[in-house]
Amino acid sequence: MRNDVVRRGRLSGERTGEMMHFLSSMVADRQIADADVLVDIAHVLMLSKQRILDEETVRPLLAALLRLYDEGIPESAFDDIYEDVHAGIEAFLITTVGEETGGRMHMGKSRNDEVAACLRIRLREDVLRQLSILFRLRETIICLAEEHTGTVMPGFTHLQHAQPTTLAHHLLAYEQAFSRDCERLSESFSRVNLSPLGAAAFASTGYPVNREYIAGILGFDGVLGNTMDAVSSRDFALEVLSNLSIMMTGISRLCEEIILWSSSFAGFVSLDDAFCSTSSIMPQKKNPDTAEIMRAKAASLIGAYTSAAVTMKGLPMSYNRDLQELTPSLLRGVQDAKHSTSLLNGMLMTASFNRERMKEEAGKSYSTATDLADMLVRKCGLPFRTAHSIVGRAVQNGGLDRVFLDEAATSITGSPLPGNSLQDIDILDALDVEKSIEQKKAKGSPSTLSIRSAIEDRKKRLEADQQNTEQRALALKEAIDALIRDARRIARE
Amino acid sequence: MRNDVVRRGRLSGERTGEMMHFLSSMVADRQIADADVLVDIAHVLMLSKQRILDEETVRPLLAALLRLYDEGIPESAFDDIYEDVHAGIEAFLITTVGEETGGRMHMGKSRNDEVAACLRIRLREDVLRQLSILFRLRETIICLAEEHTGTVMPGFTHLQHAQPTTLAHHLLAYEQAFSRDCERLSESFSRVNLSPLGAAAFASTGYPVNREYIAGILGFDGVLGNTMDAVSSRDFALEVLSNLSIMMTGISRLCEEIILWSSSFAGFVSLDDAFCSTSSIMPQKKNPDTAEIMRAKAASLIGAYTSAAVTMKGLPMSYNRDLQELTPSLLRGVQDAKHSTSLLNGMLMTASFNRERMKEEAGKSYSTATDLADMLVRKCGLPFRTAHSIVGRAVQNGGLDRVFLDEAATSITGSPLPGNSLQDIDILDALDVEKSIEQKKAKGSPSTLSIRSAIEDRKKRLEADQQNTEQRALALKEAIDALIRDARRIARE
Amino acid sequence: MRNDVVRRGRLSGERTGEMMHFLSSMVADRQIADADVLVDIAHVLMLSKQRILDEETVRPLLAALLRLYDEGIPESAFDDIYEDVHAGIEAFLITTVGEETGGRMHMGKSRNDEVAACLRIRLREDVLRQLSILFRLRETIICLAEEHTGTVMPGFTHLQHAQPTTLAHHLLAYEQAFSRDCERLSESFSRVNLSPLGAAAFASTGYPVNREYIAGILGFDGVLGNTMDAVSSRDFALEVLSNLSIMMTGISRLCEEIILWSSSFAGFVSLDDAFCSTSSIMPQKKNPDTAEIMRAKAASLIGAYTSAAVTMKGLPMSYNRDLQELTPSLLRGVQDAKHSTSLLNGMLMTASFNRERMKEEAGKSYSTATDLADMLVRKCGLPFRTAHSIVGRAVQNGGLDRVFLDEAATSITGSPLPGNSLQDIDILDALDVEKSIEQKKAKGSPSTLSIRSAIEDRKKRLEADQQNTEQRALALKEAIDALIRDARRIARE
Amino acid sequence: MRNDVVRRGRLSGERTGEMMHFLSSMVADRQIADADVLVDIAHVLMLSKQRILDEETVRPLLAALLRLYDEGIPESAFDDIYEDVHAGIEAFLITTVGEETGGRMHMGKSRNDEVAACLRIRLREDVLRQLSILFRLRETIICLAEEHTGTVMPGFTHLQHAQPTTLAHHLLAYEQAFSRDCERLSESFSRVNLSPLGAAAFASTGYPVNREYIAGILGFDGVLGNTMDAVSSRDFALEVLSNLSIMMTGISRLCEEIILWSSSFAGFVSLDDAFCSTSSIMPQKKNPDTAEIMRAKAASLIGAYTSAAVTMKGLPMSYNRDLQELTPSLLRGVQDAKHSTSLLNGMLMTASFNRERMKEEAGKSYSTATDLADMLVRKCGLPFRTAHSIVGRAVQNGGLDRVFLDEAATSITGSPLPGNSLQDIDILDALDVEKSIEQKKAKGSPSTLSIRSAIEDRKKRLEADQQNTEQRALALKEAIDALIRDARRIARE
Repeated sequence: MRNDVVRRGRLSGERTGEMMHFLSSMVADRQIADADVLVDIAHVLMLSKQRILDEETVRPLLAALLRLYDEGIPESAFDDIYEDVHAGIEAFLITTVGEETGGRMHMGKSRNDEVAACLRIRLREDVLRQLSILFRLRETIICLAEEHTGTVMPGFTHLQHAQPTTLAHHLLAYEQAFSRDCERLSESFSRVNLSPLGAAAFASTGYPVNREYIAGILGFDGVLGNTMDAVSSRDFALEVLSNLSIMMTGISRLCEEIILWSSSFAGFVSLDDAFCSTSSIMPQKKNPDTAEIMRAKAASLIGAYTSAAVTMKGLPMSYNRDLQELTPSLLRGVQDAKHSTSLLNGMLMTASFNRERMKEEAGKSYSTATDLADMLVRKCGLPFRTAHSIVGRAVQNGGLDRVFLDEAATSITGSPLPGNSLQDIDILDALDVEKSIEQKKAKGSPSTLSIRSAIEDRKKRLEADQQNTEQRALALKEAIDALIRDARRIARE
Repeated sequence: MRNDVVRRGRLSGERTGEMMHFLSSMVADRQIADADVLVDIAHVLMLSKQRILDEETVRPLLAALLRLYDEGIPESAFDDIYEDVHAGIEAFLITTVGEETGGRMHMGKSRNDEVAACLRIRLREDVLRQLSILFRLRETIICLAEEHTGTVMPGFTHLQHAQPTTLAHHLLAYEQAFSRDCERLSESFSRVNLSPLGAAAFASTGYPVNREYIAGILGFDGVLGNTMDAVSSRDFALEVLSNLSIMMTGISRLCEEIILWSSSFAGFVSLDDAFCSTSSIMPQKKNPDTAEIMRAKAASLIGAYTSAAVTMKGLPMSYNRDLQELTPSLLRGVQDAKHSTSLLNGMLMTASFNRERMKEEAGKSYSTATDLADMLVRKCGLPFRTAHSIVGRAVQNGGLDRVFLDEAATSITGSPLPGNSLQDIDILDALDVEKSIEQKKAKGSPSTLSIRSAIEDRKKRLEADQQNTEQRALALKEAIDALIRDARRIARE
Repeated sequence: MRNDVVRRGRLSGERTGEMMHFLSSMVADRQIADADVLVDIAHVLMLSKQRILDEETVRPLLAALLRLYDEGIPESAFDDIYEDVHAGIEAFLITTVGEETGGRMHMGKSRNDEVAACLRIRLREDVLRQLSILFRLRETIICLAEEHTGTVMPGFTHLQHAQPTTLAHHLLAYEQAFSRDCERLSESFSRVNLSPLGAAAFASTGYPVNREYIAGILGFDGVLGNTMDAVSSRDFALEVLSNLSIMMTGISRLCEEIILWSSSFAGFVSLDDAFCSTSSIMPQKKNPDTAEIMRAKAASLIGAYTSAAVTMKGLPMSYNRDLQELTPSLLRGVQDAKHSTSLLNGMLMTASFNRERMKEEAGKSYSTATDLADMLVRKCGLPFRTAHSIVGRAVQNGGLDRVFLDEAATSITGSPLPGNSLQDIDILDALDVEKSIEQKKAKGSPSTLSIRSAIEDRKKRLEADQQNTEQRALALKEAIDALIRDARRIARE
Repeated sequence: MRNDVVRRGRLSGERTGEMMHFLSSMVADRQIADADVLVDIAHVLMLSKQRILDEETVRPLLAALLRLYDEGIPESAFDDIYEDVHAGIEAFLITTVGEETGGRMHMGKSRNDEVAACLRIRLREDVLRQLSILFRLRETIICLAEEHTGTVMPGFTHLQHAQPTTLAHHLLAYEQAFSRDCERLSESFSRVNLSPLGAAAFASTGYPVNREYIAGILGFDGVLGNTMDAVSSRDFALEVLSNLSIMMTGISRLCEEIILWSSSFAGFVSLDDAFCSTSSIMPQKKNPDTAEIMRAKAASLIGAYTSAAVTMKGLPMSYNRDLQELTPSLLRGVQDAKHSTSLLNGMLMTASFNRERMKEEAGKSYSTATDLADMLVRKCGLPFRTAHSIVGRAVQNGGLDRVFLDEAATSITGSPLPGNSLQDIDILDALDVEKSIEQKKAKGSPSTLSIRSAIEDRKKRLEADQQNTEQRALALKEAIDALIRDARRIARE
């Protein structure tokens, strides 16, 4: 504990390794350590601008921090003897440039605002990265839809063959869902990318800090006003986690379908071997393991959100150490979501769909019975509910030919279907799978016309989303570049 | 099962009461039944406009539906013999106007798109109501902040007295958090208020339905394009639930503080008796039960989100009956959140804060030690970390007077504090609670200046939020009014 | 609030309907109201035995309570003006027999120990009922296994055809899992059926109460010693909920399989119409809705456990009103689990399994490739891993005949399989589905021999479990009968 | 992928590092790797005993495995190119002793039964270790109770001072709760310590394996009969996780109280510095961080259980790769629980309780008002509810002296308290804190007599629990010792 500069004044008491490890946030802190260096640089720049620190202190401090930026943080700063990486870096600075200089960096800040700032910097990058992977996934799906506009397949409700549709229509359902995931994440970005700096422990500080300035040079979109809220709130993390868990339920649904489609029963899709495993005992097996793990990752994300939200429940203001325990759940959730999205994209890009098997199944199980009922409404003037009952009874009794239909009509309405207005060809026509699909012309339907129009719409939407995200990423990059440039200039002056 | 018009064709098999009750969604359906009547009316209007139904059918159908709208849905439509209220209402219509007419209402729709539409109509109202209650709560907090700008109190970290602040500053932390809850809910509204209608079972329909038209007359902001996604997705419900669960963690934090503040230890606040209970055995007790239940409701919301998200995990497309089980969690969560917010508002409005007790505690436990360290930096030119260690050591050894400080300085730096630059009055000044607060001048700090400016900002923000929500509420009301007006006109024609 | 005898002394303050409803536990209390009457009766008997109440008070009190027992609790006792049913019943008694008598019942007890006792009485009945339904389910599965000992079917891993097995073997996997659920519930019963009575608010009471006596006459197995723990702990509820949620994950797995098996792809099982629904639009559909809802109920149980556990997290001693919010989650979870188990039993009892379809699929997808590899080990002396690789390669290249196998052996080991030791008939034999099954002779395997032995074992186990539970149920019944008999005797004396 | 002996036959396809990392379970596998070596050794012994392998193969195999046992598993076996450590170890053996020998080890087993066995071996050790830490914690609490039998303190309900009690009584509430945690974990051990071995992929194997034998030599208490259940079920993991999450809710409650008690408000306890942190900005702070993190760990455990249970929901039989994702949640939960329990024990052992502050608070807030009401019942013959109302009203009006009580009695009953039967000394006596405590004589109450008796009971209970666990631990140790001894003998023969 020799080097623990934060503890040395107030606390004595020997800590065991178990205690230090339990109290330490170092495992998670590795993922926010780079952000911490940026925050320290920006803080020193702000202290300099506000003339809280003079240039004799600022120059060596910045030089030492820029070394950390250029060469990476030394392993010693991550030792469990420090409660966190903020203390580790401060101790490193004090060792490097002396306490007279290094001991001044922490003026007007606290680990409370610092860790919140680091988490937000890390998370804004994660959110943008997640968005860009989602964009690639949506692009892949749109490409597949273009390729499979005419690929007929059975649509399912309750896992029963329901009505025929196309693979394009089916896959575009997921693209539409993933585009809402993009909306949610994009909206959350606005609340993530706000600066808590200057809040210090929670009451701000007596030093004349400039909260807008430091927010600006770190690329934040604004300042989190109230300083107690700034250090105490983690709703920005909860909402990213819940958005990711919602996204993962979507991913798990597509994975479930890929698992079903690659079963021997369906044989609709064959995955690239790279995404599969075999069995250590059964030599013939080719298993869709990647899809299964992604499905399970949805459970992990739901659990991560649960952990994080439960941590926050009932915590009094302002900072409590419980907040530290939220970070690993957040970072783990972010990683799991990122890898799952990326692998799902790869799996879809390399999958081979079996058009013949899909078509073969599309017409099974009376999948066009609804079209038949609709035709009876049109041709025989029956109310829909009556036609529905007649067709249902015919299926129950054995089939959808004229004999069964008349029998069913008689048992439901008391008389057979009107012979004059209804030909056998009408029945055959109504039951035709491709005709059924092409008749679905409303917006968002499986007919070729509707799908083509949908693909155009989705491409435009995707492009707009991409541009918006790229602009944000660019703005962040430019801010950090400028920050480092300015720090170098002042360090050199 | 006599009246179950949907089942009669396809299925036989005797169902027990337990089965019917288990399969039935009637308990939850009571809360979407009014929406169902609106959807039916709009569907008939659309079928009429598209000339799918002729006016001989449309008129009596609309007349019957308007009777349901005006007089309420008869109890018989909620019988467990129907799987849901949609079947119950259809059966009622067939009984009332005959199958020849009533049996035609279901053309081109399915319960799959219908129930999704009803849920969205119900939920958009719930979201707007929740927003308006949050606005009232924020208003109450801002009023309290105005009243308590000068009410000094201890601020806490780790439940330890940390630095002095004001009640205004403390309460405004919550207002800022609740305003983010408003943002999230408001953004979710945009995804809730979209129409799935015309999607039918999932593949849309062969009838020339007009999806944009029916969306418009029901007040939806747009159409959910892909029809498979339209019936299969429930992310709109998940995001509302997760937003509410995040909001409830905030509410639970404030409730935790109110419970702490009303304990004998603190005595900071006295709640109105109406929000308290006594004990059946201990006659002297006055317990903050309402705050405790609200705190627990955060747990209920987290569990409701868990249930709902887990239900969705790994479901294949498109509709599965599992979706039905999500609805009660959603509706229960919405109710719990609404009541909690509303009662929290009432509790705050009627609470009496004890300025004397708060002030008494504000200076305890060396709460201004940070200011002292900052002063040592300024007056003695010490690095912050050194000053921090000296003050910490002095506290550990017994106090913050000159003797202890010099002793600590000697043990840390080898020499006492410089006598010439430091007067005893500097120490006393630095330790003064009110001076400490007034020195915190950065944006969002507790000084009077900062609080006054924050209050102005927050009022403007609240007003803008309110206007936005009122406009949305008005637009919905106007759409529904116009829908009913048109339906009455056509029914009468 | 006129009648709220508990509040009248200490509290004023007007409560609104919303407040009263929010604070009131009446909805849940309906389910513990009968238990409350029993607890009141036992409490009065104990006060009488300990001579804390004299017989002039005891007699009318018991008479009034027995009227509630015989005729049911009047609706007025459930009014929202009472915080709970305990207050409602006390108020009813005071109205009925006067405060001079009725006002004495609450001596030496508090609602804190009372509600915990009522919950435990209710829950012990629920646990026993759940056990008896699980026994019926296990019996059904064992019967099905006897019937289907020779019903060959494909076994799956990763939803891929893996190795052949039998329906008996497959179903008995669930019976074994459900028997562990019985173990867990049965063990929990021991912790549920303990008496908190006499703990009063948490500090026990100055009256000479007899905790062992009242525990005994209410059928409890013992006394919860420490009185603070007695009123504050709800782990008995958490463990029942978690056990039920574990059980429901098992039920959801079987339901998932039933849904898969009843799909058109598999066609392994046909459910009774009573357990299915059709579609409001697609007349041909027969959907396994009951199985889907049960699958979703697993999500509800997980959420219920989450809510309940989160409620308890971080609550200080002793009683807090948060505990009230746990009860609805518990009772809802118990109901959902009970109905799901019971309906699953009914669904299995009435299901028709299609032996032909199962057999047809059992040999597909090289399901006996492992047996072939094992044969190569035996006949050709190959290491298992080498044989595994050869068979795997042959499958990848196109098939499991001699030509493909030799080709694969050459590519893996450099030489073809040894011609002399291996005949084509060996290959055919190794690939035979029924031979494959019958070779699996170890305990718990699918061979006829192993299954018959397993069925005998499981029957014995089930019988022992049933006897144990019936004895417990009988002991409870006898205790309550004796309690009422004694109360009647004393009331009459 | 060069060395991936399991994949080489069946699968081609290039895997990226991201894929391999995502699919690999290596991070978690490090924690079950030692168990895997034991399982391999036992499997070879069993194959030898059953004469499935001859001694030429058995000897070098055992020798190689014993080297892994003695010298540890080489880092190469944990490379991400292997899907799991089972494949890594097999590949290492094949490299070491050649495929001709090493390729025979996997006969008659699969990774499906192997990983389940490893998890169970790991978890049974974890459960025993958790139990022994819980025993230490209970011992500490009992010691503290002996020391603080006479330490008077306020008892709380709703965080309000309620009735006086003692620290012994308060702490023993937790000991009683933790002893139920021990019961649950101990019962779960019986279901954890069962052997799935011999189940192979799920259908068992055609080789004449001996399931009882291998179970016995690995120290398992028995065999998991049905082989499909043996590889597919994870309820043993779910129940350990849920038991630990229930335990952690208890730990979080005690931590919440320690945080409250160490606040400036209460000042009841002072924690050893080693368990505290200070602030990087506020030099005077001493924060109970360890207790806060433990409180948050309860959230992590609830989330871990959620993740694990959700993973299992709706999985079809038999093995699915989703199961792999459950393991990290389980291991993380086990670790968090272990460290939390251990640190809580250390924190309690080193804490200093402030008897004066506790006593000072014990009589505040009319904490003996219940005793006063009880005395009024005795002395004045009032019904309890009437006495309760009178005392409540007196508190509301200002105090518990004779004047206020008479005034209250008049307003409630129409007449003052009877002067003759009631002396002022009776009132003072009834309000005396220590007399109040000593009157609570029922089992489990705070009186000295009851506490002493409770301490004796709890010591006996603890001792019995410890013995039971030690026997189990010894039996496991002896089994593994014998296993290794036998393996060495055969390897040397």
